[in-house]
Amino acid sequence: MNRQWLYAKPPTGRIGVDTFQWRETAIPAPRAGEVLVRTRMLSLDPANRAWMMGKTYRDALEPGQVMSGFAIGEVVDSTVAGFAKGDLVEGDWGWQEYAALPAARLTRRTLEAPLELLVGPLSVTGLTAYFGLLEVGRPKPGDTVLVSAAAGAVGTMVGQIAKLAGCRVVGTAGGQDKCDWLTRDLGFDAAVDYKAGGVRRALAAACPGGIDVYFDNTGGAVLEAALSLMNLRGRIVCCGNVSQYDVDKPAPGPMAVPGLVVTKRLRLEGFIVMDFYDRRAEAEARLARWVSEGRIKAVVDVVEGLEKAPEALIGLFAGRNRGKMAVRV
Amino acid sequence: MNRQWLYAKPPTGRIGVDTFQWRETAIPAPRAGEVLVRTRMLSLDPANRAWMMGKTYRDALEPGQVMSGFAIGEVVDSTVAGFAKGDLVEGDWGWQEYAALPAARLTRRTLEAPLELLVGPLSVTGLTAYFGLLEVGRPKPGDTVLVSAAAGAVGTMVGQIAKLAGCRVVGTAGGQDKCDWLTRDLGFDAAVDYKAGGVRRALAAACPGGIDVYFDNTGGAVLEAALSLMNLRGRIVCCGNVSQYDVDKPAPGPMAVPGLVVTKRLRLEGFIVMDFYDRRAEAEARLARWVSEGRIKAVVDVVEGLEKAPEALIGLFAGRNRGKMAVRV
Repeated sequence: MNRQWLYAKPPTGRIGVDTFQWRETAIPAPRAGEVLVRTRMLSLDPANRAWMMGKTYRDALEPGQVMSGFAIGEVVDSTVAGFAKGDLVEGDWGWQEYAALPAARLTRRTLEAPLELLVGPLSVTGLTAYFGLLEVGRPKPGDTVLVSAAAGAVGTMVGQIAKLAGCRVVGTAGGQDKCDWLTRDLGFDAAVDYKAGGVRRALAAACPGGIDVYFDNTGGAVLEAALSLMNLRGRIVCCGNVSQYDVDKPAPGPMAVPGLVVTKRLRLEGFIVMDFYDRRAEAEARLARWVSEGRIKAVVDVVEGLEKAPEALIGLFAGRNRGKMAVRV
Repeated sequence: MNRQWLYAKPPTGRIGVDTFQWRETAIPAPRAGEVLVRTRMLSLDPANRAWMMGKTYRDALEPGQVMSGFAIGEVVDSTVAGFAKGDLVEGDWGWQEYAALPAARLTRRTLEAPLELLVGPLSVTGLTAYFGLLEVGRPKPGDTVLVSAAAGAVGTMVGQIAKLAGCRVVGTAGGQDKCDWLTRDLGFDAAVDYKAGGVRRALAAACPGGIDVYFDNTGGAVLEAALSLMNLRGRIVCCGNVSQYDVDKPAPGPMAVPGLVVTKRLRLEGFIVMDFYDRRAEAEARLARWVSEGRIKAVVDVVEGLEKAPEALIGLFAGRNRGKMAVRV
């Protein structure tokens, strides 16, 4: 029996348990050119919510479809050379225990590491941090790097990579506990609780020399405040807009665009991690070495059981996770 | 006698004649290290208004100061080697007939060209178009380039340089007359009257293949519409925000920032022409050649007499000029 979560209906405002619907159905048989995989771990990401809002870099989610999501699993049956029973593969086959899909939609994983690292820190979220910070943000030693959603999957990696790059690192997170954790356990130089109010003033105090690179996972009030504190020729890495995904009505855009962009000669640049996948192997090897040497802590927040996936995604938007949120299936 | 316009008081909303105050005073004598210049032509620019709003890339204008503005003039007395009587110089000495100022604030002009070209198309505004389009926007042949305020000093130059670079060129301007002029006389492929309403739909029709480079002089509604029509990896050259300078209360920022910046991998980048002045001579020579060969029309709108300067700047914000607005003194 295949167990699945369907995307049931578009949320109005925040997602809830009724956004999803449980279904049990037959395990599919792989057709010619297809591979049957059994899910081992699901990746939960803010982007899952963004896909409900319309076409982005991929087609919009449609009600009735299996809920989309990045996953890692093992091959249980294959009609395709190069994919053998027991192989570890990753892809976006969504919230289900089994899936039959074309080999072109799968990537084999051969890196030796625990599954919970392979689903995040050594995969999409780690690579997002790596390429976004180093290739788009291009920090120089001594730069002040600000990252929002710093306690999240991408933010924890961005902050630690920026420290390795010789930067002063400041993060924003929701709640003093997370902020303390960032400075105590992850090596951040300062952290600002964006829920405590007065975020601009708190950021100004945490970044007395201004901000050179802002890695923006959130948009919203932190982006607005960061724009006002950017140094001349600062870079803003546009990675996500999580403050505006799980809402009924998005906030207005940042007033400082384009005024401060001109006068401070800022660069705002968006990217999607797949844009850099021609250099994936090199980046993954570097991340794996940093993790194995203890220079980076790979933080993973694992929830047990497919049935918990909706609750876990709701929790992600409530800020309950630290680091990468994943579901063991 | 020195005739001057002072910046009298901060405007509430639009500038008016009472923003400025006429003064007649003694002609200053140059002190050691200073040069006395007689103004020949003043450049009127949207930035003049922006300087009233606070500190930008320069200090804010303060009431009681001579109104700031870029100008060209001739040396009438000098205490400094390298600046002789009759030399042509440029600098920001503002709206006055005579000024004594340190040599470091002056640039000698040796290019042979009429004054009205030296004050705009072959100086700040031409160079702004040249470096902003080619260095920040980096268009490729076949790209669609959109420019706002296309009938203005920078816009007319951007559009024509983009045509030389092999691009399809679309402009926005206020009124059908200006739009007809852009396509008939300046070689634009299409022009959209932003005052006619439905600017997004009109731009979509004028840019059926989307927009690769948007040269933004205006911010506001055209920026918002352009963001929604940008192609993947499009570039937005943030040059000005003229729609928001001469207003009481600026409009909210563009909703598409940062959402569409991420999903379309856009780059928004601000610049100030002085950032590129190490390569000024090369660019000026190229612009001068294009103008002399008739490959670019240098459009200048000259108003006669210093006393007309306030009225002319008010007219610029009402969209009365075509091309570079200058005042002959």
